[in-house]
Amino acid sequence: MNILKTLCAINAPSGEEFRMKEFLIDYISSSKYWWKKKPKLIYGDGFQDNLIVVFGKPQTAFVAHMDTVGYTVRYDKELIPIGSPVSETGYKLYGEDSIGEIDCLLHKNSEEYNLSYIYKRLIKPGTSLSFKPDFKSNEEVIQSPYLDNRLGVWLLLKLAESMEHGIIAFSCYEEHGGGSVEFITKYLYERYNIKQIIISDTTYVTEGIKHESGAVISLRDAFIPRKIFVDRIRALAKKHDVKHQLEIEESGGSDGASVQKSPYPVDWCFVGPPISNIHSPYEIVNKNDIFATLKLYELIMQNIK
Amino acid sequence: MNILKTLCAINAPSGEEFRMKEFLIDYISSSKYWWKKKPKLIYGDGFQDNLIVVFGKPQTAFVAHMDTVGYTVRYDKELIPIGSPVSETGYKLYGEDSIGEIDCLLHKNSEEYNLSYIYKRLIKPGTSLSFKPDFKSNEEVIQSPYLDNRLGVWLLLKLAESMEHGIIAFSCYEEHGGGSVEFITKYLYERYNIKQIIISDTTYVTEGIKHESGAVISLRDAFIPRKIFVDRIRALAKKHDVKHQLEIEESGGSDGASVQKSPYPVDWCFVGPPISNIHSPYEIVNKNDIFATLKLYELIMQNIK
Amino acid sequence: MNILKTLCAINAPSGEEFRMKEFLIDYISSSKYWWKKKPKLIYGDGFQDNLIVVFGKPQTAFVAHMDTVGYTVRYDKELIPIGSPVSETGYKLYGEDSIGEIDCLLHKNSEEYNLSYIYKRLIKPGTSLSFKPDFKSNEEVIQSPYLDNRLGVWLLLKLAESMEHGIIAFSCYEEHGGGSVEFITKYLYERYNIKQIIISDTTYVTEGIKHESGAVISLRDAFIPRKIFVDRIRALAKKHDVKHQLEIEESGGSDGASVQKSPYPVDWCFVGPPISNIHSPYEIVNKNDIFATLKLYELIMQNIK
Repeated sequence: MNILKTLCAINAPSGEEFRMKEFLIDYISSSKYWWKKKPKLIYGDGFQDNLIVVFGKPQTAFVAHMDTVGYTVRYDKELIPIGSPVSETGYKLYGEDSIGEIDCLLHKNSEEYNLSYIYKRLIKPGTSLSFKPDFKSNEEVIQSPYLDNRLGVWLLLKLAESMEHGIIAFSCYEEHGGGSVEFITKYLYERYNIKQIIISDTTYVTEGIKHESGAVISLRDAFIPRKIFVDRIRALAKKHDVKHQLEIEESGGSDGASVQKSPYPVDWCFVGPPISNIHSPYEIVNKNDIFATLKLYELIMQNIK
Repeated sequence: MNILKTLCAINAPSGEEFRMKEFLIDYISSSKYWWKKKPKLIYGDGFQDNLIVVFGKPQTAFVAHMDTVGYTVRYDKELIPIGSPVSETGYKLYGEDSIGEIDCLLHKNSEEYNLSYIYKRLIKPGTSLSFKPDFKSNEEVIQSPYLDNRLGVWLLLKLAESMEHGIIAFSCYEEHGGGSVEFITKYLYERYNIKQIIISDTTYVTEGIKHESGAVISLRDAFIPRKIFVDRIRALAKKHDVKHQLEIEESGGSDGASVQKSPYPVDWCFVGPPISNIHSPYEIVNKNDIFATLKLYELIMQNIK
Repeated sequence: MNILKTLCAINAPSGEEFRMKEFLIDYISSSKYWWKKKPKLIYGDGFQDNLIVVFGKPQTAFVAHMDTVGYTVRYDKELIPIGSPVSETGYKLYGEDSIGEIDCLLHKNSEEYNLSYIYKRLIKPGTSLSFKPDFKSNEEVIQSPYLDNRLGVWLLLKLAESMEHGIIAFSCYEEHGGGSVEFITKYLYERYNIKQIIISDTTYVTEGIKHESGAVISLRDAFIPRKIFVDRIRALAKKHDVKHQLEIEESGGSDGASVQKSPYPVDWCFVGPPISNIHSPYEIVNKNDIFATLKLYELIMQNIK
């Protein structure tokens, strides 16, 4: 899982996904030769920072967002959030401005600001800061900032190795306002007649969602996907004995919301591993849940047409 | 009005509109032979659970949503809302899970949960529950759960009987997050050049909107339709002496919001009867308001081109 | 700047932009003969109240919204807001209903209503009221209601005088719910392959944004534009020594939000002058900030392809 460690260390909060996109283009371009089928890569002018990877004759797409939560330096020492990061004094942040590389600390509830930074010099206004990479792994679990959603990205790279027909797409802005899966949904529907999208992302451990209980299939969060489609995913997991659990929440959301509200007749379902301490530098995932999710993705890829 | 009673008893909260869609396809397929003009039915693959019915050479479309508010069973005995149902302890709910049919009671503010159910057994997580059918009618009024929006659906079925040119469309997800009229607006604009949509739905009795005061033409709710278009509907009602009242609210919304925010140059106006106790099992409507609304729909059908 | 005074006096709250559109069509139709290049005007059926003006072979578009905040008369003497006007007792409002012209006063926190009007007669429900024109100018500053966004409109009319290739578009509904730039983005992308939109609007004076500090380039508000695009605008301003300042806010928004969330791969950046007392009848702008903004627009027009 070295590649997951690398993915978690790429600095790409919402609006700056280009760094992740460039890494993925390089990675896929050099890896595809030993994949089962060589895909077509779609990106560049007219695609903003999205990356779409097409295998054979696709009927279903998997979408993972590349962006992360983080902070923007405001006018003085103040920070304002990108997305909804969990913030505690002492969290290590990093970034870069025109003066140089930055390694600073987060300060919560100072006298002056709700959120600010502690650093030896002023940081240029508008600079983005992210949680500093800190990847730890043992036999059972992984702890790292940005498992949300570098784990979703990693899962699709693993899935790609054996993909013959299908699409994996890497999207932007999930953590902050959306706008990218709106485009991807349109493009995939119009160009490839894709009417089914699996959201490859991570979700919250809650009173009903536990570590080591398998892949999460979400029946609903703030949005409700079409029951007929979600039931097909559930039936598949059941038939093939893939360890899974059902999410039923009133709040929260994913790129599925963008598919739901798009003017295209595309069904969606969230499938992914549960994470604790989500949006903090200490996100934790159980390895068995990762493998159960991958197994379910493979079954979807082969069976949902 | 037996058909309205039947419509109100179909279990189809947001995400499960397929049951209403199937009923409507059957009903229209068998009724169209005695309608003034036989329409074309559009549905199925590529249309999710939407149903579009086209008569002649249409210039204006009427849209009624099929879904209702309700509840989803969460992990234990907890319920979470679908849309914004009014909830009181003792309300009768029904549904079905893999064990069998369910007839249970709503419990508000139990020790453990904000909303939960009272039943002889545990209900499978993810099961949807709706208000139990309870249709009452006298000479003046009708009381039933789900007049919102089975009344809007019924009005369009009545309108269809004499329709020569026009579209009636049945949509999904109005009560919970939208996403269906976004598609319908796109389809109707691109395929039929429809630039005018009448929202056939029910609205609130308020200090300015009364029972027995006629069809409601909404000048605004949370969204503001284009004055030039709404004024045409107002002028039509006035010219033909249709009893009507003007809604001017700061909040609330309808599928009109989805038309408004769509990237298509389509005007919209809400026209429908007022309801009291809306989103409870005891919704009440005055029959004269229903007939005034139907009369206004017929005038719009004939005159707004 | 007589034309700016005229623009500020046109009554066109959200939903009634047609009055501004008609003025602009007349103004542009008679002015274009002495402009550097005669543009094509696009409006009318299928465009709602939007107005699109195309010069040569465009690659970048500038969008200014025509609508303003205001009030709608509710059922009795109550007023409800259109957009987010700043309200104080005594503010002068004007409008027109079927009885005649109206000149009234705003009343905040009366015994009965949060917002209401004081007038010699009842005003017809549904009537829109706007801040009464009151334009003042000296050598340094301009004070007037509706500098937001008649100043953005004025800036594009000035820019048009020397435009050879580009688009200026005048949009609706920015102050209240959007829905117009969604269409404009689609139209410009599909018809002219426009992938870059500059939002010509006004913004707030805050602790980081000052009068007389130049054109505001927004790095973010509630939404975050793509860094790669915004950095190009920043670099241009820097290279050509245009006085400018960077906005970095957590809240607020513009038509840029509609571009961001559209399903089209179009970049956007907000560039405009800062205003104090925004959304009140006493909006104030510094003239040097207007000229710095115009200078930056000209540079963008010539250099961003």
